[in-house]
Amino acid sequence: MPQSPTMDQLKAFFTEAFPGSSAPDFIAIGDGTASVRLQVEDQHLRPGGYVSGPTQMSLADTVTYAAIFTRIGITPMTVTTSLNMSFLRPLITRVVVAEAKLIKLGRMLAVAEVLIRAEGSGSAASHAVVTYALPKEDA
Amino acid sequence: MPQSPTMDQLKAFFTEAFPGSSAPDFIAIGDGTASVRLQVEDQHLRPGGYVSGPTQMSLADTVTYAAIFTRIGITPMTVTTSLNMSFLRPLITRVVVAEAKLIKLGRMLAVAEVLIRAEGSGSAASHAVVTYALPKEDA
Amino acid sequence: MPQSPTMDQLKAFFTEAFPGSSAPDFIAIGDGTASVRLQVEDQHLRPGGYVSGPTQMSLADTVTYAAIFTRIGITPMTVTTSLNMSFLRPLITRVVVAEAKLIKLGRMLAVAEVLIRAEGSGSAASHAVVTYALPKEDA
Amino acid sequence: MPQSPTMDQLKAFFTEAFPGSSAPDFIAIGDGTASVRLQVEDQHLRPGGYVSGPTQMSLADTVTYAAIFTRIGITPMTVTTSLNMSFLRPLITRVVVAEAKLIKLGRMLAVAEVLIRAEGSGSAASHAVVTYALPKEDA
Repeated sequence: MPQSPTMDQLKAFFTEAFPGSSAPDFIAIGDGTASVRLQVEDQHLRPGGYVSGPTQMSLADTVTYAAIFTRIGITPMTVTTSLNMSFLRPLITRVVVAEAKLIKLGRMLAVAEVLIRAEGSGSAASHAVVTYALPKEDA
Repeated sequence: MPQSPTMDQLKAFFTEAFPGSSAPDFIAIGDGTASVRLQVEDQHLRPGGYVSGPTQMSLADTVTYAAIFTRIGITPMTVTTSLNMSFLRPLITRVVVAEAKLIKLGRMLAVAEVLIRAEGSGSAASHAVVTYALPKEDA
Repeated sequence: MPQSPTMDQLKAFFTEAFPGSSAPDFIAIGDGTASVRLQVEDQHLRPGGYVSGPTQMSLADTVTYAAIFTRIGITPMTVTTSLNMSFLRPLITRVVVAEAKLIKLGRMLAVAEVLIRAEGSGSAASHAVVTYALPKEDA
Repeated sequence: MPQSPTMDQLKAFFTEAFPGSSAPDFIAIGDGTASVRLQVEDQHLRPGGYVSGPTQMSLADTVTYAAIFTRIGITPMTVTTSLNMSFLRPLITRVVVAEAKLIKLGRMLAVAEVLIRAEGSGSAASHAVVTYALPKEDA
């Protein structure tokens, strides 16, 4: 039974594993769930002043990775196999929140649903289904 | 009939529209097609030394945006509505190439297929289907 | 303001519009939601005794079509533009339930999330994101 | 090294494995590729006289299943894990052709790209990316 990491342990892992990027700002983790908060800066914007698609996809990928770790422990060689993103409405905000919830955790594959919204908003700006492949246990 | 932009015009547009990012390095554009090349740096990597998912998704989004512009001219308020990415195999390389080809250009929606590979490789590392909504003509 | 159809009106529409198929058995409709129930027969199965993928995709398409009609009235020329289905676990049951919930209703596009499960089960067997294009108002 | 099935063997498999459905009419199989042809009947249509989405998704699923079998032999417990379908334009025809091409065949997952068109047409009416999970070798 793997130990679920704390938010501090997750942050430390991301800082070390992705040295060129700022560590995600986790605001909650649970049993198969994780949420992050992003302070929007100029490099996150696209024409129209919207938070860009790649910024949102990156958040979706990150929160899913973390949500899986809440169940199986920090497992770096878990890798994305697909990410299906639907952009529903423009995301114009200074603070973005992304929340992932696992909907499947099998032996080979984990699937999460992710909602991304402006902090405080009741409507999701985008929705993602993200699938990761888990490393083989004997590898 | 809109004028197709040159690669220099595309680069100038991206430089201005995305001030926090380095402009894409276009290597070819055609009638409904565009290719970019990315020199991999540390911030593009994930554990395992693979080019990260978000790096690849960002390239897929960019080449599709450019491929649409080859047909309708530079139209900044064209916005991504969905991006479905399938990661097929680890991408371990110093130079990534992403190529988009439009498979639909309607009045409302454009759809492109994108292949991403290590430069010189015959096998795609990932495959994307990217849909953009075109701004209304009367808007 | 279009009138939301009743379940009987939806059934009558499907019976007439899809003469070769049995009408969906709606069990609930709401404001942007619809659920159907399917009694599994031999032609719905695939090897392993699982309810087949095409059976589930067809249900996902149908409940989304109906969920849209609860908001805009019965509008036959609403057409599917994409359907992204994730199969999470084998679906072995005599009765399937599919539920759609609209997560976007714009002027051009509607997007729904669909969950499919064995009747009485707490775990979804599959998850879909279905996008429809709405006919132009002046068409 | 598994033996690639003939088209007759594929047809016989589908007839037996899906007793309630008419067997797919294979028109070509190759190394990681398969094509089928469908004679359109009333039950395949949706309002507007278009070939319905579920009809096209079912074809996409079938040709991918067969394309995988050209590489690994007939393996019934290969199961769909995701199907992402993009509908590009109305499909109005008496004969539909669906072609699958494997873009990945790993130990756990196979991914194919599928194009569906009116027989004789140069433009795809829809495009799918279909992922199947392969049964474990020791299972």
